[in-house]
Amino acid sequence: MTPMEMLEAVRDGRLSPEEAERMLRTKPFVDLGFAKVDTHRAIRSGSPEVIYGAGKTPEQSVKIAGTLLDNGAGCAMITRCSPGTWELVHSTFDDAVYHEKANIIVIGRPPEPSPNSSVCVVTAGTSDIPVAEEAAVTAETLGSRVDRIYDGGVAGIHRLLANMEPLSRARAVVAVAGMEGALPSVVGGLVNVPVIAVPTSVGYGASFEGVAALLAMMNSCSSDVSVVNIDNGFGAGYIASMIDRRTAPL
Amino acid sequence: MTPMEMLEAVRDGRLSPEEAERMLRTKPFVDLGFAKVDTHRAIRSGSPEVIYGAGKTPEQSVKIAGTLLDNGAGCAMITRCSPGTWELVHSTFDDAVYHEKANIIVIGRPPEPSPNSSVCVVTAGTSDIPVAEEAAVTAETLGSRVDRIYDGGVAGIHRLLANMEPLSRARAVVAVAGMEGALPSVVGGLVNVPVIAVPTSVGYGASFEGVAALLAMMNSCSSDVSVVNIDNGFGAGYIASMIDRRTAPL
Amino acid sequence: MTPMEMLEAVRDGRLSPEEAERMLRTKPFVDLGFAKVDTHRAIRSGSPEVIYGAGKTPEQSVKIAGTLLDNGAGCAMITRCSPGTWELVHSTFDDAVYHEKANIIVIGRPPEPSPNSSVCVVTAGTSDIPVAEEAAVTAETLGSRVDRIYDGGVAGIHRLLANMEPLSRARAVVAVAGMEGALPSVVGGLVNVPVIAVPTSVGYGASFEGVAALLAMMNSCSSDVSVVNIDNGFGAGYIASMIDRRTAPL
Amino acid sequence: MTPMEMLEAVRDGRLSPEEAERMLRTKPFVDLGFAKVDTHRAIRSGSPEVIYGAGKTPEQSVKIAGTLLDNGAGCAMITRCSPGTWELVHSTFDDAVYHEKANIIVIGRPPEPSPNSSVCVVTAGTSDIPVAEEAAVTAETLGSRVDRIYDGGVAGIHRLLANMEPLSRARAVVAVAGMEGALPSVVGGLVNVPVIAVPTSVGYGASFEGVAALLAMMNSCSSDVSVVNIDNGFGAGYIASMIDRRTAPL
Amino acid sequence: MTPMEMLEAVRDGRLSPEEAERMLRTKPFVDLGFAKVDTHRAIRSGSPEVIYGAGKTPEQSVKIAGTLLDNGAGCAMITRCSPGTWELVHSTFDDAVYHEKANIIVIGRPPEPSPNSSVCVVTAGTSDIPVAEEAAVTAETLGSRVDRIYDGGVAGIHRLLANMEPLSRARAVVAVAGMEGALPSVVGGLVNVPVIAVPTSVGYGASFEGVAALLAMMNSCSSDVSVVNIDNGFGAGYIASMIDRRTAPL
Amino acid sequence: MTPMEMLEAVRDGRLSPEEAERMLRTKPFVDLGFAKVDTHRAIRSGSPEVIYGAGKTPEQSVKIAGTLLDNGAGCAMITRCSPGTWELVHSTFDDAVYHEKANIIVIGRPPEPSPNSSVCVVTAGTSDIPVAEEAAVTAETLGSRVDRIYDGGVAGIHRLLANMEPLSRARAVVAVAGMEGALPSVVGGLVNVPVIAVPTSVGYGASFEGVAALLAMMNSCSSDVSVVNIDNGFGAGYIASMIDRRTAPL
Amino acid sequence: MTPMEMLEAVRDGRLSPEEAERMLRTKPFVDLGFAKVDTHRAIRSGSPEVIYGAGKTPEQSVKIAGTLLDNGAGCAMITRCSPGTWELVHSTFDDAVYHEKANIIVIGRPPEPSPNSSVCVVTAGTSDIPVAEEAAVTAETLGSRVDRIYDGGVAGIHRLLANMEPLSRARAVVAVAGMEGALPSVVGGLVNVPVIAVPTSVGYGASFEGVAALLAMMNSCSSDVSVVNIDNGFGAGYIASMIDRRTAPL
Amino acid sequence: MTPMEMLEAVRDGRLSPEEAERMLRTKPFVDLGFAKVDTHRAIRSGSPEVIYGAGKTPEQSVKIAGTLLDNGAGCAMITRCSPGTWELVHSTFDDAVYHEKANIIVIGRPPEPSPNSSVCVVTAGTSDIPVAEEAAVTAETLGSRVDRIYDGGVAGIHRLLANMEPLSRARAVVAVAGMEGALPSVVGGLVNVPVIAVPTSVGYGASFEGVAALLAMMNSCSSDVSVVNIDNGFGAGYIASMIDRRTAPL
Repeated sequence: MTPMEMLEAVRDGRLSPEEAERMLRTKPFVDLGFAKVDTHRAIRSGSPEVIYGAGKTPEQSVKIAGTLLDNGAGCAMITRCSPGTWELVHSTFDDAVYHEKANIIVIGRPPEPSPNSSVCVVTAGTSDIPVAEEAAVTAETLGSRVDRIYDGGVAGIHRLLANMEPLSRARAVVAVAGMEGALPSVVGGLVNVPVIAVPTSVGYGASFEGVAALLAMMNSCSSDVSVVNIDNGFGAGYIASMIDRRTAPL
Repeated sequence: MTPMEMLEAVRDGRLSPEEAERMLRTKPFVDLGFAKVDTHRAIRSGSPEVIYGAGKTPEQSVKIAGTLLDNGAGCAMITRCSPGTWELVHSTFDDAVYHEKANIIVIGRPPEPSPNSSVCVVTAGTSDIPVAEEAAVTAETLGSRVDRIYDGGVAGIHRLLANMEPLSRARAVVAVAGMEGALPSVVGGLVNVPVIAVPTSVGYGASFEGVAALLAMMNSCSSDVSVVNIDNGFGAGYIASMIDRRTAPL
Repeated sequence: MTPMEMLEAVRDGRLSPEEAERMLRTKPFVDLGFAKVDTHRAIRSGSPEVIYGAGKTPEQSVKIAGTLLDNGAGCAMITRCSPGTWELVHSTFDDAVYHEKANIIVIGRPPEPSPNSSVCVVTAGTSDIPVAEEAAVTAETLGSRVDRIYDGGVAGIHRLLANMEPLSRARAVVAVAGMEGALPSVVGGLVNVPVIAVPTSVGYGASFEGVAALLAMMNSCSSDVSVVNIDNGFGAGYIASMIDRRTAPL
Repeated sequence: MTPMEMLEAVRDGRLSPEEAERMLRTKPFVDLGFAKVDTHRAIRSGSPEVIYGAGKTPEQSVKIAGTLLDNGAGCAMITRCSPGTWELVHSTFDDAVYHEKANIIVIGRPPEPSPNSSVCVVTAGTSDIPVAEEAAVTAETLGSRVDRIYDGGVAGIHRLLANMEPLSRARAVVAVAGMEGALPSVVGGLVNVPVIAVPTSVGYGASFEGVAALLAMMNSCSSDVSVVNIDNGFGAGYIASMIDRRTAPL
Repeated sequence: MTPMEMLEAVRDGRLSPEEAERMLRTKPFVDLGFAKVDTHRAIRSGSPEVIYGAGKTPEQSVKIAGTLLDNGAGCAMITRCSPGTWELVHSTFDDAVYHEKANIIVIGRPPEPSPNSSVCVVTAGTSDIPVAEEAAVTAETLGSRVDRIYDGGVAGIHRLLANMEPLSRARAVVAVAGMEGALPSVVGGLVNVPVIAVPTSVGYGASFEGVAALLAMMNSCSSDVSVVNIDNGFGAGYIASMIDRRTAPL
Repeated sequence: MTPMEMLEAVRDGRLSPEEAERMLRTKPFVDLGFAKVDTHRAIRSGSPEVIYGAGKTPEQSVKIAGTLLDNGAGCAMITRCSPGTWELVHSTFDDAVYHEKANIIVIGRPPEPSPNSSVCVVTAGTSDIPVAEEAAVTAETLGSRVDRIYDGGVAGIHRLLANMEPLSRARAVVAVAGMEGALPSVVGGLVNVPVIAVPTSVGYGASFEGVAALLAMMNSCSSDVSVVNIDNGFGAGYIASMIDRRTAPL
Repeated sequence: MTPMEMLEAVRDGRLSPEEAERMLRTKPFVDLGFAKVDTHRAIRSGSPEVIYGAGKTPEQSVKIAGTLLDNGAGCAMITRCSPGTWELVHSTFDDAVYHEKANIIVIGRPPEPSPNSSVCVVTAGTSDIPVAEEAAVTAETLGSRVDRIYDGGVAGIHRLLANMEPLSRARAVVAVAGMEGALPSVVGGLVNVPVIAVPTSVGYGASFEGVAALLAMMNSCSSDVSVVNIDNGFGAGYIASMIDRRTAPL
Repeated sequence: MTPMEMLEAVRDGRLSPEEAERMLRTKPFVDLGFAKVDTHRAIRSGSPEVIYGAGKTPEQSVKIAGTLLDNGAGCAMITRCSPGTWELVHSTFDDAVYHEKANIIVIGRPPEPSPNSSVCVVTAGTSDIPVAEEAAVTAETLGSRVDRIYDGGVAGIHRLLANMEPLSRARAVVAVAGMEGALPSVVGGLVNVPVIAVPTSVGYGASFEGVAALLAMMNSCSSDVSVVNIDNGFGAGYIASMIDRRTAPL
């Protein structure tokens, strides 16, 4: 119900102003005390709902997941699960799956990807894989098909050039790199779709836990690169899938 | 010609290996000495080509533009024009337009936007307008239709809420803000499309010429926000238009 | 006794200069060796006295608390209690209470809040609650009534708009946020009273343990926002209560 | 008109939903294109309205001022006036005053201070005076009486101790300091009211244009100190006056 | 033997050039493989020798101490002893003392202070005491008499003013403070001797482990303040004692 | 096979285009899933191959080493071995050696150094030795002879001057220092060959885990100094050996 | 008159309490409005008084100088004179001298140095000379004899070793360096007196306007080095002279 | 004359100790007051001598150049010439050449490059050319042959791959890049010789005047990359030429 629809309902007597005001106040979310769970979004978007598990107890994550599923969400995912979350989820919900490398729990059945769906997740090195998996599983859970190219760093550019096929098919690319963070610039020059760059905290010394990679990516000479927070595989997968699922054949 | 096609042509005798190697070496760009102009991209993508004018003399910018147009580009744009560029462009090309607030020159005719094309460019304050215009004119030149909401900062949230219509219609949003950089988070919570956040150097003291806004945007609690460099209106407009032009009706 | 009163007493022979000098030297505090406890302030202000427990052993905190209560303080609070402090306080003082989420111990009876007293403590997310509780319990112990709005972050602005009533009643607001730290700017635009912003170390990557939020808050476009140190819930609660308790009806 | 009042008016037929929606959209501000001027606030608060002049042309500042005054504001002030603003204001409005040291223009008559009103503005050095004047004139324009103690830095603590009278009378203190920024801590220990600390960009080398002072103030060991942005005299004066005007006699 | 003396000895045939060259190479230190111990300095200066224990095994520290004492040093001190060092020292040397709060071991008998020797070590808070003790024990071991004023922070300036006597007697002052680091500026204004400022890592949030205090001290408005590294109590005590021991009565 | 050779082979029918394309895609590396191992480089360069062990499980490191040795590498080294790697390597390969101080495992027989080979590794202090050993063992494994000068810091410049012989013989110098990082500047002024500077994280407080040393080295007034990452002994040893092995007698 | 003396005078009726209080308030300084000039210090210390000229108009500097000289100071110096100051001073005072390289004006006759007075000012390069001259002229004006060693940087260590004589004679050393800031560590190892290190803003790129040098100096491995602010030649000269003038023959 | 030779000469009576000591003191440089010119190096190395012109007056640069040439240097170069230097050099020396893009003056005839000499200087973009020219002209003046590849940035990797020939011939590579600084990593993976990386201040916003590029280069995943200061083309050219000239055929 949009504000205009609500106002018309009030005018027509179908809705009292008191109810309208209460709706504005109480409907969009369920207040669990420690969290205000946005249940309208679940109904409205039809997409799987996301719970950021870091800093939440297993009980809190499970309670929010239950609230979402009870209010119409068909699927919920918990990212960055704190220890013990999988055990509690597993014993509470029947249809949950734990993606260990990504540290993501999915409860319920994610949507099927469309035929031409294609997100490509590339990493510079082996140590970037956990962040890349967070991106890949997120995109898959949201309804995208995902190709993975791991350890394709720019110091051996032939490793990347040998994997042009999934890159050129992708509708959105997630490029994950720590250390000097050069991968998104090179990838951005090879493809013609949005590249979501994820700096990782992989490195030591003057990598400053991902700052060097972050700055490199912010300054990318490729016009199609935008950046998310250090180690934020989830955000990159979320945006890449959002783009992928809406892309029309050119 | 793809590498596979080229190799087949070599096998079939239609192309000598020497020619093939020369093609690999010389064709993809024209070397002007001070710049290697990527003429293949112009032909391949059909999109207007972009010249980053900062740090280039008017002569250099004009020479690159001419090379692009001579090699098949239908339209070229020069961003961040250095002083004197417009004068030289104006006297060299007939069909050039100068977008002053955006400091962008467009030579030739940009493509028409598709019927449902919609990019929304929002700013927090009045001083963010030049960066926003860079984004807006870029997106328009690349073939998008653009709505502008200026001075919609979060300290007067009603100014933003009163402009929900263009926001909810947009297929991609560019959110431009200096100082505390809070706008993309709020906008990201209101829409359901990718938000490209542009920190600006507007502010003083602890804004550190845009760093405060950049950090805020990197840490946005809205999942659909990715970030480009400080004052990089061009990049944001480029990505937003790329998404806009490929978006299918849901 | 003000300096002027003391000088008059010396002139009138009621106080010898030696005593006056000794008073200046020894009276304002009790020197425990590791700490100089300000006992005059306790008597003078009538307010509960505060002991910053971090970096103090339980024995030191208890010794200072005892000195304050012995010198006329009606109530003492220990913030950021180091481990073991509650056990020792509990076995030493009869009338102590431990506020666990805030990690604050209150010994003695705090003053009653005045009828219209109203401080509102808002957080952006669930993880900000410990800092918010430090602010809330501090303000309550100093004599304010406190409303709590938790998880009201700006990416779901309706969660905040649905809680306007306690916000508009407040005489001072404490806004607690990590990550992008946008909450105080939005709150500052909704209310017309001083907003004390508390950045928290909640976040990861480019949040730099609260620096991103701190910078955002320093650059707030709302004129009524001032900022305290990262995670300094105590300071914010102290100032908010100081303002609250002195506010006259407009 | 509150949302509840508006909804009741719609129910009672006194207001059509279309009008109500239009009000939500159009009333709270006048859209000048480059700025959305908040005219409701002017009417609602009765306070002088503030225009942040930096980065605005004289024409823009004057146009916003005119819009505010036309919509019921009794007094408007322009801070950080860009060059030429005073000339244009002076020739446009009869009753304007230019406070040169503060670089603030006041148009119309500010409210009279109440009898016990008292804000004290202290600076560490001579070079901090322009920022201090911005604070002082802001507070005066908003209706406070202001005492000034300039060059009271902590390296000659007797200069501060010799000025205890205005300090002890103040209901809110603004402490302005560059370099090591120690003043607010010392002042905060001497008074029992909120201290708004303003770091200034005065200094050289490792002062980093005010960062050293800012950090010092953020870490103040005085509980009653909160901080605004570097050189933000306006914000400090605004908050100090807000506290001053609402303070009841204890 | 100075270079000139050595060259004369070569000329006079008392020293062969080969021996002279070997002396240049081998004499000034004993090479233990992991360390080159400067034994000439021990003989030359007559002062206790210092071993920086951090990052050295107890065996390494003891071996260096033995080498120094064997080569004529009358007294050796080990600072920042790594765990187990005291046990090994205690069982190796008869005349060793462990200063626990300072974490310094002294082997042998330090020189007696001269009659007017006077170093004053002041701290802002209780948590600064370990760093202050490192300074105090260092100065004492090098032959100075030391007064300690602890918890004299600037938010309660009367605590400092009540201890003027040892301050005004001192020939050099060590001022130790974390958080806002304001103490040296205030102390520097009260005395007329060199003040060695030691920032400590005491604090949280925007103290950045002592950086805030360091910057404040670098920008001190008192002309007599110079600064050593964060938590470098040893360096401050070393320099203060060096000044103290050479000071003539004015 | 160079690209030109491959194209000629295709023309002459000795190689089908399909095979050529497959070669381009598959030959240069073996894809282990978690890593793409560059086997061509092993064959091509004849040098020992390097595995960066940090962030790899012992199994991963061993698998990569096996792949390299199976594909023609005569010698492989693993740097920054994670715990348990030596045990697994030791039980898998017969001819492995563990250099404990350098935390480097060498499998197979490194090449013999040439007669005049000479790399000199200098450290400022005792704590810099582990990084220096990483450099030294790397250079030795790659085929250089290495001299070590440890604890030659600039505060006792005679310790360095007494070791001029190995310095003046070196064809490349690795200078390793933490804290103020002054060593490379002094060494660079004493020798006439490239100096590779390695900042170490040795130090405390304002050393910022090697940043102070890194900055000092970046600003060296000696023209022959270039810098690698903090604690990157491997990189310095790699480059120094690369220079050493190619140096002709002048 | 000490506080104790004043209190005794009050007791004995020689001083009324009102007068005593007024003395406390008014005597120690003359309030010029823009500055509170500390005239007691002038009388008390007998030393030349210092006016920090940066950010002061020539009129302000001259007015303060006049106030000092009128109140008993025999000599006054103005550092960092703003443009036009020398002209105004020259036409106002008869006995003024302008030290151009140091940008210091001295009015009146500085004290004669004692026979053994010796401060040594060393610079790393030619560009550091202005800062060094500020230190040297300051020390000379305060009554010290000064030796200058300029361009003695550590990349040509023999240039420093060839000037050991003035270094070994000095009672305090000022070491001035930009870029890598290594000079104080080397000098500190050569002498046995306090070394005051002054980082300069000389350099480019990663020197960050003196930060690299500042950090290097803070981390000096020489125990006798303390540091003042970037380019703060005055402070270093002040402290060095303070030490020099009090040093007794050993 | 080595120290050993000098000592032998003293023993044999060919040199008096006084003369030997004077030689140690006075010979290695000529003291011009503002600079100590190292004339021995000129004689010893046979290489062109370098004068860093920044911060020197034309007169100072010319005076140093004259001193070098008078003391046996066959060729001198002045880098970063301050304005007016070329005019003065031109009118003073007959055989001077000004390399304008590099801002380097060469006086006298540089040595001829050896037959296989080969340094390759690569830039990422057009704006990096001035820094690249500083490197190239430096290397040429020191006796190397130089290939230039300009505008070969990684976002169009084919531009680099099309220039493999000069890269693969080079004995040392200088890789110059601003913005994200990715070029050295890609180049380092393509060649098998030392790569000297030069970050440039080209870029805007979060490039922080070259810091982003500097950090990227410090963290390069290519083992053969070392880094010099931002914009330090001279240093890179110096080191690259030093390596080039000593490289033996493999």
